[in-house]
Amino acid sequence: MSRLNAHDLEPVAGNGLLPRRLFLTGGIAGLSLLRAVPLGAQQNVPDWMRAPGGPLRPYGERSPHEASVQRIVGPMPGTTGSGSSRTPLEFLEGMITPNSLHFERNHSGVPDIPPAQHRLVIHGLVRRPLTFDLEKLTRYPLISRMHFVECSGNSTALYAAQPAQAGAGVLHGLLSCAEWTGVPLGTLLDEVGVQPEGKWLLAEGADAAAMSRSIPMDKALDDAMIALYQNGERLRPENGYPMRLLLPGWEGNTNVKWLRRLKVTAAPLMTKDETSKYTDSLPDGTALQFTFPMGVKSVITSPSGGLKMQGAGLYQISGLAWSGSGRIRRVDVSADGGKTWAPAALSAPVLPKALTRFRMAWRWNGGPAVLISRAIDDTGAIQPARDALLSKRGATHRYHYHAVQSWAVSPAGEVRNVYV
Amino acid sequence: MSRLNAHDLEPVAGNGLLPRRLFLTGGIAGLSLLRAVPLGAQQNVPDWMRAPGGPLRPYGERSPHEASVQRIVGPMPGTTGSGSSRTPLEFLEGMITPNSLHFERNHSGVPDIPPAQHRLVIHGLVRRPLTFDLEKLTRYPLISRMHFVECSGNSTALYAAQPAQAGAGVLHGLLSCAEWTGVPLGTLLDEVGVQPEGKWLLAEGADAAAMSRSIPMDKALDDAMIALYQNGERLRPENGYPMRLLLPGWEGNTNVKWLRRLKVTAAPLMTKDETSKYTDSLPDGTALQFTFPMGVKSVITSPSGGLKMQGAGLYQISGLAWSGSGRIRRVDVSADGGKTWAPAALSAPVLPKALTRFRMAWRWNGGPAVLISRAIDDTGAIQPARDALLSKRGATHRYHYHAVQSWAVSPAGEVRNVYV
Repeated sequence: MSRLNAHDLEPVAGNGLLPRRLFLTGGIAGLSLLRAVPLGAQQNVPDWMRAPGGPLRPYGERSPHEASVQRIVGPMPGTTGSGSSRTPLEFLEGMITPNSLHFERNHSGVPDIPPAQHRLVIHGLVRRPLTFDLEKLTRYPLISRMHFVECSGNSTALYAAQPAQAGAGVLHGLLSCAEWTGVPLGTLLDEVGVQPEGKWLLAEGADAAAMSRSIPMDKALDDAMIALYQNGERLRPENGYPMRLLLPGWEGNTNVKWLRRLKVTAAPLMTKDETSKYTDSLPDGTALQFTFPMGVKSVITSPSGGLKMQGAGLYQISGLAWSGSGRIRRVDVSADGGKTWAPAALSAPVLPKALTRFRMAWRWNGGPAVLISRAIDDTGAIQPARDALLSKRGATHRYHYHAVQSWAVSPAGEVRNVYV
Repeated sequence: MSRLNAHDLEPVAGNGLLPRRLFLTGGIAGLSLLRAVPLGAQQNVPDWMRAPGGPLRPYGERSPHEASVQRIVGPMPGTTGSGSSRTPLEFLEGMITPNSLHFERNHSGVPDIPPAQHRLVIHGLVRRPLTFDLEKLTRYPLISRMHFVECSGNSTALYAAQPAQAGAGVLHGLLSCAEWTGVPLGTLLDEVGVQPEGKWLLAEGADAAAMSRSIPMDKALDDAMIALYQNGERLRPENGYPMRLLLPGWEGNTNVKWLRRLKVTAAPLMTKDETSKYTDSLPDGTALQFTFPMGVKSVITSPSGGLKMQGAGLYQISGLAWSGSGRIRRVDVSADGGKTWAPAALSAPVLPKALTRFRMAWRWNGGPAVLISRAIDDTGAIQPARDALLSKRGATHRYHYHAVQSWAVSPAGEVRNVYV
C-alpha cells in the first residue's frame, strides 16, 4: 500500500477539506495529524488483566459501556401502538445497521407471531391460489441482497420553517440497512399463475392494524422479495418476523411487515394506509399518490447535530448516501456552506439501493464552518437544495424529504442544524 | 426479470442438481416445484391481529421463538476461561453473521474494559512511541471492510479417523463474517515512524492471558486494521471491545482482541501463543510456524449434519465459501459423492477475504445422495480432498483443516458427516 506525501494533504476545497486519497491508501507519510500522547513509563497492567474475564455466552450482548447508544423511541400518544423508533445514526459506522438498532415504524404495535402458525396466502386474479408456510418458503431458491429501508416520513422535521435542533438520528434515523435473504416474489407469483388483468397486488400485514398497501405488479416481478432473514438471522419481530415484503428502494411503508396476504388485483385498492396517509400534498391542494421510490439523499452523521468538536485539528467527516433508484455515483462535500465542493471517498461495496458510507478528511481551523453533503446517483439524479425541494412541494408536504442537510460548526465546537 | 422455462429445470449434474439460473432470475415459469397448500376458506384472522402488539424498544431483541438458535458453547475444563463458542451456521443465511452469534475464542475469559481507560501503545523500533485512546483513534480516517474471521482450529474434528456426527456449526462454526470499521494500521505506523530494522510486530491483548502474537510488518502495512466497529456498532466484548487487530484472511488467533500494545521488533518474539500452540505438526516430527493465511474452503450449511429432509422434492443447497488469499471465483457442487459437479450461484457481493454465500437448487429423488462443495479462489487455489490434505499433514496435525465436507443423505432424510 503506497504511503502519502505532504502534497496529498493540501486542501481540495475550501475551509480545510483534504483529499479522499487519505481513505484509499494506508498511511500519511509520517505527518503527525493528531496529538497522540508520547509514551512515558511502560503502560501499567490494568485491573481487567489481573483476573480471568467473563464467560462464553450462547447469544452475545454488547458492552454495558455502550448502553447509551439506543434507538430514539417515539410512540404516538392516543394511538394503539402507532409510533416509531429511530436508528442513532451519529453513533454508528459502516453501511450495515445492527439488527437491534434497525429503525421501527409500527401502526399497532409489534405482534408476537408463532412462526409455525403463520401463513402467507396469495390469491385474487390468479389461476391457483396458494398458502405458504415458513418451511415451504425456505425450500425455494433464496437470494440475499443488501438494501436500505427508509420511512417516507423520514426527515419530515426539515420541512419546518425553522431548523429543528436535534441529532442526525432524530432527524434522519427512520433509515437502516441490512443484508436481507428471502424468496424472490416473482417465483411465488409464477407458482400461483397471475392472470393477464392482474396489474396490482394488495399486501396485508398480520399486525392489529392489518397495515395494507397496493403494489404495482411490475415492481413485484422486478426485485421484490419475501424476506425471511436479516443480517444472517431470522427477521427481528419489529422488522416483520417471520416474513416481510421487501421492495428495494421504495418507501418503507410499502415493505409490509408480518406479511400474511397478497391479493392480485386489477387496480390499487385505496387502503386507509395509502389514502388517509402516505400521500404527498401539493401547493395546488391536490395530492400525489403512489410516489414509491425514495429520492437520492445523503447526510453527514459525524460531525452532526448535538456532537461536540474537541478543538481544532484533523477530523473525519463521515456520512451515508443512498438512492431508491440505483447506486450512488458520487458524494460531494463542502465545508464552507456550499461555496466549494470536493468528492468524498465511497466505501466499497457500493451497492444499488443500499446505504453507501462516504468519508472525507477535514482539518478544522477552529473557525466557523458549514458542512454539507450532496449525493448523485447512477441515473444522474442530484440531491436537491432545500429551497428547490420546497418550491416544488409547498408547505403542507410531509413525506419524501431528501434535500441536503447542512450542519454549522461554531468556534466553540458546537454543531447545529442550519438551512443554507 | 425473465422467467424460466421447462428446459431450465433439466439437471446440470448427477442426482438432481438444477441450473444456477434459478437463483439469477425471478421465477420458475409456472412450474409447481413445491406442494404449497391450495387456498380453501378465507384465512382466519389470527389471535395476534386481535389486539395491539408489543411496544417500541430502545435496543431490540429477537423473537423468543428463535431462542434455540445459539452459539455452541465449549469451555475448556481446567482452564481459567479458555474455550470457544461456535456460530450455528446451519441456522443462518446470507454472508453477514449477526453480532450476537459471531464466534468466540478466548484464552482467559472476556475482559470488561471501560473504553475511556483503554490505551493502545505503539513502541519498540519506532522513532516516536505513542499512546492512543479511543477518541483519538476515531478521528483518524476510518475504513470499512467485510471480512471473515476463522479460528485456525476450525474443523479440527475432521482430522479424526472416523467422521464425527455433528452439525455444521459444531464442526465448522469457528467462523463468522462482519463489516469491520476501523483505522488502517499503516496510518498509525506512519505516525510512530517504523525504523528500517522493524520487520515484525508483537500484538498483545488486554485479557488476563495477555494473548500475544508476532505479525510480519508486510501484513501490517498491507490491509491490517485496528477495528472499532462490527456491523455498524462498537465491537462486542467477546470480539475485542473496545478495539482489536484485524488481519483479513489470517488465522483468527492473530487478530488479537482487546489490543493494548504493538511493539515493533526485528524478529518474531516466539510468544507462548505461537510456540506451545498454533503451530502445524508435520509427519516428519517437525512443525510449521507462522502459517497465517486460511486456506480456500467451503461447506454446505443446508442440508447438513443433524438436519432432517422432509421427503423427496425441491430443496435448496446453501453454503459458505471463503479464502484467506482473495475472492471466491467458483464453487462446484456434487450430489453424487463427487462423480459429477456443477457450479453454484454465488450471491453478490463476492468480496475478498469475506464469506461468500453459494446456492444451488436440487430435486431430491428420495434416494441416497452425497452432497459436496468445492471452492476455488481467484489465485486458482482449489479446496483439496480430505485424503490429499491428510497425506501432506500426517496424523498429529490440528490446525488449518480446509478439505471438502461431504454430507450423506439417507432415504429417510437423515444427513450425516461422511468421508468420501
